[in-house]
Amino acid sequence: MTAKFDTVRAVEWQNDTLFLLDQRLLPQQIKMNEYHDAAGTAQAITDMVVRGAPAIGIAAAYGVVLAARDAYDRVKAKWREAITADLDTLARSRPTAVNLFWALEQMRAAIATLDGGDPVAALLKVAQAIHTDDIAANRRMGEFGAALISEPCAVLTHCNAGALATGGYGTALGVIRSAWAAGKVTQVFADETRPWLQGARLTAWELIQDQIPVTLVAEGAGAHLFKQGKVKWLIVGSDRIAANGDVANKIGTCTAAIVARHYGARVMVVAPTSTIDMSTACGEDIPIESRDSAELLACGGKTIAATGATAWNPVFDVTPATFVDAIVTERGVVEQPNATKMAALMADS
Amino acid sequence: MTAKFDTVRAVEWQNDTLFLLDQRLLPQQIKMNEYHDAAGTAQAITDMVVRGAPAIGIAAAYGVVLAARDAYDRVKAKWREAITADLDTLARSRPTAVNLFWALEQMRAAIATLDGGDPVAALLKVAQAIHTDDIAANRRMGEFGAALISEPCAVLTHCNAGALATGGYGTALGVIRSAWAAGKVTQVFADETRPWLQGARLTAWELIQDQIPVTLVAEGAGAHLFKQGKVKWLIVGSDRIAANGDVANKIGTCTAAIVARHYGARVMVVAPTSTIDMSTACGEDIPIESRDSAELLACGGKTIAATGATAWNPVFDVTPATFVDAIVTERGVVEQPNATKMAALMADS
Repeated sequence: MTAKFDTVRAVEWQNDTLFLLDQRLLPQQIKMNEYHDAAGTAQAITDMVVRGAPAIGIAAAYGVVLAARDAYDRVKAKWREAITADLDTLARSRPTAVNLFWALEQMRAAIATLDGGDPVAALLKVAQAIHTDDIAANRRMGEFGAALISEPCAVLTHCNAGALATGGYGTALGVIRSAWAAGKVTQVFADETRPWLQGARLTAWELIQDQIPVTLVAEGAGAHLFKQGKVKWLIVGSDRIAANGDVANKIGTCTAAIVARHYGARVMVVAPTSTIDMSTACGEDIPIESRDSAELLACGGKTIAATGATAWNPVFDVTPATFVDAIVTERGVVEQPNATKMAALMADS
Repeated sequence: MTAKFDTVRAVEWQNDTLFLLDQRLLPQQIKMNEYHDAAGTAQAITDMVVRGAPAIGIAAAYGVVLAARDAYDRVKAKWREAITADLDTLARSRPTAVNLFWALEQMRAAIATLDGGDPVAALLKVAQAIHTDDIAANRRMGEFGAALISEPCAVLTHCNAGALATGGYGTALGVIRSAWAAGKVTQVFADETRPWLQGARLTAWELIQDQIPVTLVAEGAGAHLFKQGKVKWLIVGSDRIAANGDVANKIGTCTAAIVARHYGARVMVVAPTSTIDMSTACGEDIPIESRDSAELLACGGKTIAATGATAWNPVFDVTPATFVDAIVTERGVVEQPNATKMAALMADS
């Protein structure tokens, strides 16, 4: 490949090619994989080469550009009909993160405005706008979230809701970056986040790149950590927020939120409005992906569990809105979220 | 080695030698290490070759036999003075599990009754009684604990409080074995238990040996699991129970207990009275061991965390007595434990 990257980003478009940082290999190896069609892009999403709700949405948007190019090459003016299967394949790549469907909807809307000519330049512009807007949204959320932290304290984050999970900068880690820069965060704890260890592998790596010290803890250490009294906020991202403010996020989020609240700490969810799904009434209606039990039976590529053991591997959970102190979006902050406040936020566009 | 073992047990004494099953290698490898002196035994406890509060106590008791043999070989009638350093070394091997100190106290009491002759046979008899009594205690606790489960349900256990953590049969897993045999447990969930993965490696292995099906879950999945409503009990062991009923156990226990209670499930702690430390008023006074951060920065022997990340690795936490529904001992059950009830249990000998 001849592409050159100024900084490491989860998703890049260069030389008519989609590049995805292979997050399965981090932090030991930094490798950008190339994608030239929608099927490969969808497989990369399924396989978690790229992960994190906003990053999945951005990757899928570029996947539509690849689908349109392929369709136009094959059937010219009939490209619009020819990409339907690819759009469906992208939509089936993962079930929980709503940003995927949101991005595909943006691309469908753009497709509807085009004629039978070569659609690539126009669709690429839309995908790039989704990408750029996401980074800008993260910057705004970073400011909004940091402003909620009233005095310097330690914070805990779960999974990776950073630059690697978004177009850049990050949602939860965007807030932590902004708050760190403002002197409002004294220490960042990251839990490991089994089974994919996004905390240990990705969040730690990202923060160290930015020279923000990070301390890893086992997920089970949550109660013992909050009991020390230093950690005042749990700050996380989200894969889908229902119309009533219930929050789907990486498995372990609800456990961490219950424990945080028990010890008087607060819970901040940071996500762009593309994560809010007003068509899903409440958390019960959010489809929760279950992945292969092999992800739990092994660790670091090595089988750890006894032969014959089975595993249950739901990879998201739902934190009820009543456990959330603030949902931070690029449009503003919803404190103590409920259906009325969420509707007001989404109406205010 | 010429020793033969009928069944795999954590601690064995054969041919004047202490054998410890190397639990760091399970389930991939079943290997009994030999110990011929107290220093080696203490190191094995520190290094977690043997782990689990009752098993540590039993291993230390045999370690005293080895110390006495060595001292008698060296200085004959002055053996009592000569083993002081070894007793101290054993006492320093790990700080939290009180069964270690309890077992050493039993051995010291036995030593005080002996004259200057060869002490080995007499001390071996005491160590073997500690071992045998522990198994008998586990059987009784199994019955007592199973009787608390009023209707068939699924249960969750944390870490390994099984045959491997005790003389045999197990505390929490003893209850699960008895309840399973009585048809009161429909499904056993075990969480992984980072960083040592005792759930995935040891609990799963033990239950599979007994043909009890086991389903692994990530520790973070606790909230999502209890929310399903099938799991009615969290059943765990303990490393030290304070005089007020506060329970020190593997890191993650308090997190699991808070979440269990949140969803209306109950919390059962299963431990012999040798785990109850009436000289420790409450959980705040229990020393919590912190181990090397490398245990968190790696998984399955492979570095997982980003270079430069630090880790906080407390390996126990304290679950307040108010979160415990029942403490099951070989002397009986204390429901909704408090200082008065604990004192009554311990007076009733």
